[in-house]
Amino acid sequence: MPSPLAELLRDLDLPASGAAMHAFAAELQPLPRSLTGDGVRATLARIGERLPLQVHEVPSGTPVLDWTIPREWNLRTAWIKGPDGALVVDAARSLLHVVGYSVPVRQRLPLAELQAHLHSLPEHPDWVPYRTSYWRESWGFCLAHRDRQRLAAGEYEVSVDATLEPGALTYGECFLPGEGEAEVLLSCHVCHPALANDNLSGIALATFLGERLAAAPRRLGVRLLFVPGTIGAIAWLARNEERLGRIAHGLVIANVGDPGGFHYKRSRRGDAIIDRAVPRALADLGEPLAVEPFVPFGYDERQYCSPGFDLPVGSLTRTPWGRYPQYHTSADDLTLVRPEALAGSLRAYLAVLALLEGNRRYRNLAPKGEPQLGRRGLYGSLGGATAGRERELALLWVLNQSDGDHDLLAIAERAGMPFAAIAEVAEALVGAGLLAAVD
Amino acid sequence: MPSPLAELLRDLDLPASGAAMHAFAAELQPLPRSLTGDGVRATLARIGERLPLQVHEVPSGTPVLDWTIPREWNLRTAWIKGPDGALVVDAARSLLHVVGYSVPVRQRLPLAELQAHLHSLPEHPDWVPYRTSYWRESWGFCLAHRDRQRLAAGEYEVSVDATLEPGALTYGECFLPGEGEAEVLLSCHVCHPALANDNLSGIALATFLGERLAAAPRRLGVRLLFVPGTIGAIAWLARNEERLGRIAHGLVIANVGDPGGFHYKRSRRGDAIIDRAVPRALADLGEPLAVEPFVPFGYDERQYCSPGFDLPVGSLTRTPWGRYPQYHTSADDLTLVRPEALAGSLRAYLAVLALLEGNRRYRNLAPKGEPQLGRRGLYGSLGGATAGRERELALLWVLNQSDGDHDLLAIAERAGMPFAAIAEVAEALVGAGLLAAVD
Amino acid sequence: MPSPLAELLRDLDLPASGAAMHAFAAELQPLPRSLTGDGVRATLARIGERLPLQVHEVPSGTPVLDWTIPREWNLRTAWIKGPDGALVVDAARSLLHVVGYSVPVRQRLPLAELQAHLHSLPEHPDWVPYRTSYWRESWGFCLAHRDRQRLAAGEYEVSVDATLEPGALTYGECFLPGEGEAEVLLSCHVCHPALANDNLSGIALATFLGERLAAAPRRLGVRLLFVPGTIGAIAWLARNEERLGRIAHGLVIANVGDPGGFHYKRSRRGDAIIDRAVPRALADLGEPLAVEPFVPFGYDERQYCSPGFDLPVGSLTRTPWGRYPQYHTSADDLTLVRPEALAGSLRAYLAVLALLEGNRRYRNLAPKGEPQLGRRGLYGSLGGATAGRERELALLWVLNQSDGDHDLLAIAERAGMPFAAIAEVAEALVGAGLLAAVD
Repeated sequence: MPSPLAELLRDLDLPASGAAMHAFAAELQPLPRSLTGDGVRATLARIGERLPLQVHEVPSGTPVLDWTIPREWNLRTAWIKGPDGALVVDAARSLLHVVGYSVPVRQRLPLAELQAHLHSLPEHPDWVPYRTSYWRESWGFCLAHRDRQRLAAGEYEVSVDATLEPGALTYGECFLPGEGEAEVLLSCHVCHPALANDNLSGIALATFLGERLAAAPRRLGVRLLFVPGTIGAIAWLARNEERLGRIAHGLVIANVGDPGGFHYKRSRRGDAIIDRAVPRALADLGEPLAVEPFVPFGYDERQYCSPGFDLPVGSLTRTPWGRYPQYHTSADDLTLVRPEALAGSLRAYLAVLALLEGNRRYRNLAPKGEPQLGRRGLYGSLGGATAGRERELALLWVLNQSDGDHDLLAIAERAGMPFAAIAEVAEALVGAGLLAAVD
Repeated sequence: MPSPLAELLRDLDLPASGAAMHAFAAELQPLPRSLTGDGVRATLARIGERLPLQVHEVPSGTPVLDWTIPREWNLRTAWIKGPDGALVVDAARSLLHVVGYSVPVRQRLPLAELQAHLHSLPEHPDWVPYRTSYWRESWGFCLAHRDRQRLAAGEYEVSVDATLEPGALTYGECFLPGEGEAEVLLSCHVCHPALANDNLSGIALATFLGERLAAAPRRLGVRLLFVPGTIGAIAWLARNEERLGRIAHGLVIANVGDPGGFHYKRSRRGDAIIDRAVPRALADLGEPLAVEPFVPFGYDERQYCSPGFDLPVGSLTRTPWGRYPQYHTSADDLTLVRPEALAGSLRAYLAVLALLEGNRRYRNLAPKGEPQLGRRGLYGSLGGATAGRERELALLWVLNQSDGDHDLLAIAERAGMPFAAIAEVAEALVGAGLLAAVD
Repeated sequence: MPSPLAELLRDLDLPASGAAMHAFAAELQPLPRSLTGDGVRATLARIGERLPLQVHEVPSGTPVLDWTIPREWNLRTAWIKGPDGALVVDAARSLLHVVGYSVPVRQRLPLAELQAHLHSLPEHPDWVPYRTSYWRESWGFCLAHRDRQRLAAGEYEVSVDATLEPGALTYGECFLPGEGEAEVLLSCHVCHPALANDNLSGIALATFLGERLAAAPRRLGVRLLFVPGTIGAIAWLARNEERLGRIAHGLVIANVGDPGGFHYKRSRRGDAIIDRAVPRALADLGEPLAVEPFVPFGYDERQYCSPGFDLPVGSLTRTPWGRYPQYHTSADDLTLVRPEALAGSLRAYLAVLALLEGNRRYRNLAPKGEPQLGRRGLYGSLGGATAGRERELALLWVLNQSDGDHDLLAIAERAGMPFAAIAEVAEALVGAGLLAAVD
């Protein structure tokens, strides 16, 4: 009998899921997300329509680990007018045009002085870069290099009409309890305006994954975090420090919508169960996977895997951050993110969760010699033939390796068999009274 | 001074041994072996003419681990007569024609019904398959597919005249004591009728190996088991459970007569001394060897390596079970088994045993700096030259690595030198008072 | 702020150092070195002009570990005169012509008898081999094979005018104290007459290295040994047994002047810090390096790595002993040794020492989440861009891995960054109060 998660995986409607996630990403795309502010709140509100989401507000000035919650930033308008008074840059067209957390400004200045506040990409002259200045008071604008080169000499007027005032950092948390205390942490970031693969793809996947999981009884709890990058994860860690022991496995979700192949970045530990589960689950799906060692930069695995926490959290992405040309530019848009890629990623995450859910350690209750499987109806009765006995081999593998040390994942790896095949016979052996779970 | 086992190896007459083992296999070939019964007894009687063999009878119904000793099966005749009354299948021609443990039957039935009781190999139409039904009451016949296709429609008469009654399981055991308590377990199966490579080759090798070892004083005891597969090993394990701690090393002997290259299947532990000894011994002989990981199927290593026992038992074969086309068919006959292959296998087993016998751990008694070998006559007196000093290098390796942890096998592996060369200088160093055995 | 050793490395004048070391080797070349005697004393006297060298005299007959200090040998003259009275071999031309430790002899003998006392190299007919007979009383001469073949039949006169009498074994030791107790042992041999790469190159490098280190404050002490091979190292070990615990790292210096690439032979332990430090230091210099496992023959690492001591001592050479054709012949002369090779070797040794000096383990004092580097001026303030951030990655690596277990060397290896880059940011983090050394 497959587990509810294995059933979810089996029954997944890939085209419909992909289309729905893409549509949800499109719905969130225009919301003015930043590290803090109403854009994050609006995003969480849409997620909350689909999930039992708890929204947390952490007041500005609150100390969290080594950091302090910053002031809240909300932008009304931001623009540059040329010498002729025409708008040359306008954040109303795309929030990427203003450097995130720009302080309010209204002034006239010559082009030469303005240049120090402009950001563009000579190597991609049509794309607008994404830049922020969260931790140093500053203002700036981002624009296509081709547009920047067209700026005529003369005096420009710039305006950033924003508030940067005491408020709160906002993040969302959805906890789907399991039978036991152990949890899987799934974390995505919600702080990038406009960017589709880098932020919206992960939000959409986490939301739809949570929607499906909410209905399925599970042994493992699932905790979905929708947090602004870095400070959001740090705030959550600071507020949940005494409960971190429950995190048995974790994944940071990002860049799951581009058409690239899967990449798994190991946890800092490198040999956590999640580090073995992802490769096995994807191999069982027939999905190619590049496995990479932990490095202390990237997304919020940086925080979860800091040495004082060292949680078993990896990251499963398609093309990793910084390795696709559109990364952190206006070209990371909804055409880069494909419904079928989102659907395949959802399937991969579900497969990993189904594997974790089914992975246990057992003890063979008749460990001396092989138990007589035939009299229990678990073994073919005709001796001598060798064909068609895959299931019998799986039974023998589980019996031989179930000494209380090897989990089913380890047995599947050693036997070179799909995890589901191993889990299925383990259940049969439990039913026959030959196996007992040890954890 | 080489050990008695090294001398046996050196003095082995390969052509004579090969011819004698092949002749012995031929002598045993017609005996009606099965899981139980008089064919096994007759086989053990012939072995007992050559070895001090203890024959054990375990009564039907005796519980052994998770199993129960089955009833004893003895076949008188088994045949099928065609619609014209002529014999179309007759176990008198080959015991393979009757499914092992067929229950008595005498009936007439149309060809269509008979087909459900017939076994043949479409892919090898001239060969008779080998099939058994030990654990489910049933009857059946095996025949060449070409003959099966010639069967005309009509009514057939079948007869299995056999007894399946309370009796005993019979196995043989030959223990050749050593100086100490530690033993080498060598196990082969004696339950297959007719099959030559798969059963007779192992029986012949074990018998001749035991004959030679009986005369040679040894540090290690040698225990040879001649057991019906699975239930025989299980019965032996059940009856010797409290003595299993003495098994320091073990090998399951099978398929040692075909012309294929050697294969070694590791013990479940994977890093037992036997797992290192076999590759080294065969490398020192110049014999190519394929080393394979443990899998929980094959011969009786399945039982010895079950998790409740986990004995250091591997299996050294030529072509492994199931990988030669004649496996479990009438084509596994005395033409597949070659005298020179049997002789080479005997030599390989002797080499492994000689290595195990000579393998010890030592402690360097002058471990600080190198001892002065020159004044003990162990080192050339002329400094500066570099040629012709293999033996001196062996001396330095043994001295450097003999810290009580590394055995001679590990030193030979690290030095990349033959085990015999390392063992020889260790003995010289013991003689010079520079080395003492620690076990 | 780089360490004084890193400054030495940075400021090293390669051409001047190479020329000076080569000149020093040339100055030492004619001195009549042997296992004992005035040639060793004269060599140490020249070294002592450059270093604070302590010269030890260990009397003949002193027991040292398993050995006894031999008698002292001093040669006055050694020659062979031909049937016509002309000198055919004369040690005045090269000390290689007489077998080291030849006992005094003066006799006439026919060529046929003389041959048993002659050594030459048919495969290199113009080179004179180097031979010794330290531990068996004997005499002999070495000559070019071409000259040997020209010897006419007839009676020859041989003379070895030497003393072999109670005296002493002489060795030199230079200790440059560090802040703590831990020491680096650097050992070279001073017993070969004439040979340039095999003995003079190591002496010159050790002397110049010591000269430079003497002026630089260090955490680690440096102990330079100038010892006759084997018995010298054994004598030093015997006399310093209770202080060996201070040897934290060590290298045997030899063959550092030929034009070959670097070879590192690991310590017996194989995973000592020195075994990781040498490959990293040479990689950081861009120097190709062949790393080889420990073998219990070679130079005095044989003694330092004997199982009773097992010191963390490897050996960094250019072409290893025995692998260049000129090895132990008159062709190992000052043309084989090149100033630029000596300079490159000095640089390599300095780089290893600088790495060892800077290698420490730290503890991240803000290990929960990443500390906020930006407010400490350690991190760029503009978010979103990815280029030019090598130093920030180094900071994150050190913070992430500094759990008190990983040393900076391990972090550099894992990050794939130069050790100096890692050490530099560690110092910055200590300055920022984020890191504390644990040893």
